[in-house]
Amino acid sequence: MKVLVTVMPKVGVLDPQGKAIGHALAGLGFAGVGEVRAGKVIELEIAETDAARAKQLAEEMARKLLANTVIESFRVEVA
Amino acid sequence: MKVLVTVMPKVGVLDPQGKAIGHALAGLGFAGVGEVRAGKVIELEIAETDAARAKQLAEEMARKLLANTVIESFRVEVA
Repeated sequence: MKVLVTVMPKVGVLDPQGKAIGHALAGLGFAGVGEVRAGKVIELEIAETDAARAKQLAEEMARKLLANTVIESFRVEVA
Repeated sequence: MKVLVTVMPKVGVLDPQGKAIGHALAGLGFAGVGEVRAGKVIELEIAETDAARAKQLAEEMARKLLANTVIESFRVEVA
Protein backbone atom coordinates (compact mmCIF):
# COMPACT_ATOMS: atom_id res chain seq x y z
CA MET A 1 0.00 0.00 0.00
CA LYS A 2 1.37 3.43 -0.96
CA VAL A 3 1.34 6.11 1.75
CA LEU A 4 2.32 9.77 1.30
CA VAL A 5 3.81 11.69 4.22
CA THR A 6 3.95 15.44 3.66
CA VAL A 7 6.17 17.36 6.08
CA MET A 8 5.97 21.16 6.22
CA PRO A 9 7.59 23.75 8.50
CA LYS A 10 5.15 24.84 11.19
CA VAL A 11 3.47 28.20 10.56
CA GLY A 12 5.58 30.93 12.13
CA VAL A 13 8.82 28.94 11.95
CA LEU A 14 11.51 30.58 9.81
CA ASP A 15 11.61 28.92 6.38
CA PRO A 16 14.83 30.05 4.67
CA GLN A 17 14.32 27.60 1.81
CA GLY A 18 10.89 29.01 1.10
CA LYS A 19 12.26 32.57 1.27
CA ALA A 20 15.05 31.69 -1.17
CA ILE A 21 12.57 30.17 -3.63
CA GLY A 22 10.40 33.26 -3.34
CA HIS A 23 13.31 35.56 -4.15
CA ALA A 24 14.39 33.35 -7.04
CA LEU A 25 10.91 33.37 -8.53
CA ALA A 26 10.79 37.16 -8.28
CA GLY A 27 14.18 37.28 -9.94
CA LEU A 28 12.81 35.22 -12.82
CA GLY A 29 10.08 37.81 -13.27
CA PHE A 30 7.16 36.02 -11.60
CA ALA A 31 5.14 38.85 -10.04
CA GLY A 32 2.37 38.33 -7.50
CA VAL A 33 4.03 35.52 -5.55
CA GLY A 34 3.36 35.92 -1.84
CA GLU A 35 4.50 33.56 0.88
CA VAL A 36 6.39 30.45 -0.24
CA ARG A 37 6.79 27.46 2.10
CA ALA A 38 9.01 24.52 1.21
CA GLY A 39 8.63 21.06 2.70
CA LYS A 40 9.23 17.45 1.81
CA VAL A 41 7.07 14.56 0.70
CA ILE A 42 7.97 10.94 1.32
CA GLU A 43 6.23 8.18 -0.59
CA LEU A 44 6.34 4.87 1.30
CA GLU A 45 5.42 1.42 0.02
CA ILE A 46 4.13 -0.36 3.14
CA ALA A 47 3.41 -4.10 3.13
CA GLU A 48 0.03 -3.66 4.79
CA THR A 49 -3.47 -4.30 3.42
CA ASP A 50 -5.42 -2.40 6.07
CA ALA A 51 -5.44 1.35 5.27
CA ALA A 52 -5.91 2.45 8.88
CA ARG A 53 -3.00 0.29 10.04
CA ALA A 54 -0.78 1.61 7.21
CA LYS A 55 -1.68 5.18 8.17
CA GLN A 56 -0.92 4.50 11.83
CA LEU A 57 2.49 3.01 10.91
CA ALA A 58 3.33 5.98 8.69
CA GLU A 59 2.39 8.41 11.48
CA GLU A 60 4.70 6.55 13.83
CA MET A 61 7.49 6.71 11.21
CA ALA A 62 6.86 10.45 10.82
CA ARG A 63 7.07 11.07 14.57
CA LYS A 64 10.22 8.94 14.98
CA LEU A 65 12.16 9.87 11.84
CA LEU A 66 10.57 11.72 8.96
CA ALA A 67 9.57 14.93 10.74
CA ASN A 68 11.20 17.07 13.39
CA THR A 69 7.96 17.65 15.28
CA VAL A 70 9.43 20.64 17.16
CA ILE A 71 9.51 22.75 14.00
CA GLU A 72 7.63 20.67 11.46
CA SER A 73 4.09 19.35 11.09
CA PHE A 74 3.18 16.33 8.98
CA ARG A 75 0.19 14.96 7.15
CA VAL A 76 -0.33 11.32 6.15
CA GLU A 77 -2.42 10.23 3.15
CA VAL A 78 -3.01 6.68 2.00
CA ALA A 79 -2.67 6.89 -1.77
CA MET B 1 -4.72 31.57 -3.95
CA LYS B 2 -2.66 28.73 -2.47
CA VAL B 3 -1.03 26.30 -4.93
CA LEU B 4 0.89 23.13 -4.04
CA VAL B 5 3.70 21.94 -6.31
CA THR B 6 4.87 18.41 -5.54
CA VAL B 7 8.19 17.44 -7.12
CA MET B 8 9.27 13.77 -7.12
CA PRO B 9 12.21 11.94 -8.69
CA LYS B 10 11.16 10.26 -11.93
CA VAL B 11 10.54 6.53 -11.65
CA GLY B 12 13.78 4.69 -12.41
CA VAL B 13 16.00 7.59 -11.39
CA LEU B 14 18.33 6.81 -8.47
CA ASP B 15 16.89 8.25 -5.24
CA PRO B 16 19.65 8.14 -2.60
CA GLN B 17 17.58 10.14 -0.14
CA GLY B 18 14.73 7.66 -0.41
CA LYS B 19 17.14 4.76 0.01
CA ALA B 20 18.67 6.37 3.11
CA ILE B 21 15.23 6.89 4.65
CA GLY B 22 14.34 3.26 3.91
CA HIS B 23 17.48 1.98 5.64
CA ALA B 24 16.90 4.29 8.62
CA LEU B 25 13.32 3.08 9.01
CA ALA B 26 14.50 -0.53 8.92
CA GLY B 27 17.11 0.36 11.51
CA LEU B 28 14.38 1.73 13.76
CA GLY B 29 12.62 -1.61 13.53
CA PHE B 30 9.91 -0.78 10.99
CA ALA B 31 9.44 -4.01 9.03
CA GLY B 32 7.53 -4.29 5.77
CA VAL B 33 8.69 -1.01 4.26
CA GLY B 34 9.29 -1.42 0.54
CA GLU B 35 10.36 1.30 -1.84
CA VAL B 36 10.75 4.81 -0.37
CA ARG B 37 10.83 7.88 -2.63
CA ALA B 38 11.62 11.33 -1.28
CA GLY B 39 10.59 14.55 -2.99
CA LYS B 40 9.71 18.11 -2.14
CA VAL B 41 6.53 20.09 -1.86
CA ILE B 42 6.36 23.84 -2.36
CA GLU B 43 3.35 25.80 -1.18
CA LEU B 44 2.93 29.06 -3.12
CA GLU B 45 0.62 31.96 -2.32
CA ILE B 46 -0.20 33.37 -5.77
CA ALA B 47 -2.05 36.69 -6.16
CA GLU B 48 -4.48 35.27 -8.71
CA THR B 49 -8.23 34.68 -8.46
CA ASP B 50 -8.60 32.38 -11.46
CA ALA B 51 -7.65 28.79 -10.51
CA ALA B 52 -6.68 27.79 -14.06
CA ARG B 53 -4.41 30.83 -14.41
CA ALA B 54 -2.81 30.14 -11.00
CA LYS B 55 -2.18 26.52 -12.01
CA GLN B 56 -0.66 27.59 -15.31
CA LEU B 57 1.67 30.04 -13.52
CA ALA B 58 2.74 27.39 -11.01
CA GLU B 59 3.47 24.93 -13.81
CA GLU B 60 5.66 27.54 -15.48
CA MET B 61 7.45 28.17 -12.15
CA ALA B 62 7.98 24.42 -11.79
CA ARG B 63 9.44 24.08 -15.27
CA LYS B 64 11.72 27.12 -14.85
CA LEU B 65 12.86 26.71 -11.23
CA LEU B 66 11.17 24.31 -8.87
CA ALA B 67 11.82 21.03 -10.71
CA ASN B 68 14.74 19.66 -12.65
CA THR B 69 12.58 18.17 -15.38
CA VAL B 70 15.40 15.91 -16.58
CA ILE B 71 15.24 13.76 -13.44
CA GLU B 72 12.13 15.03 -11.67
CA SER B 73 8.41 15.12 -12.42
CA PHE B 74 5.99 17.57 -10.82
CA ARG B 75 2.33 17.83 -10.00
CA VAL B 76 0.41 21.06 -9.36
CA GLU B 77 -2.70 21.26 -7.16
CA VAL B 78 -4.70 24.38 -6.42
CA ALA B 79 -5.43 24.11 -2.70
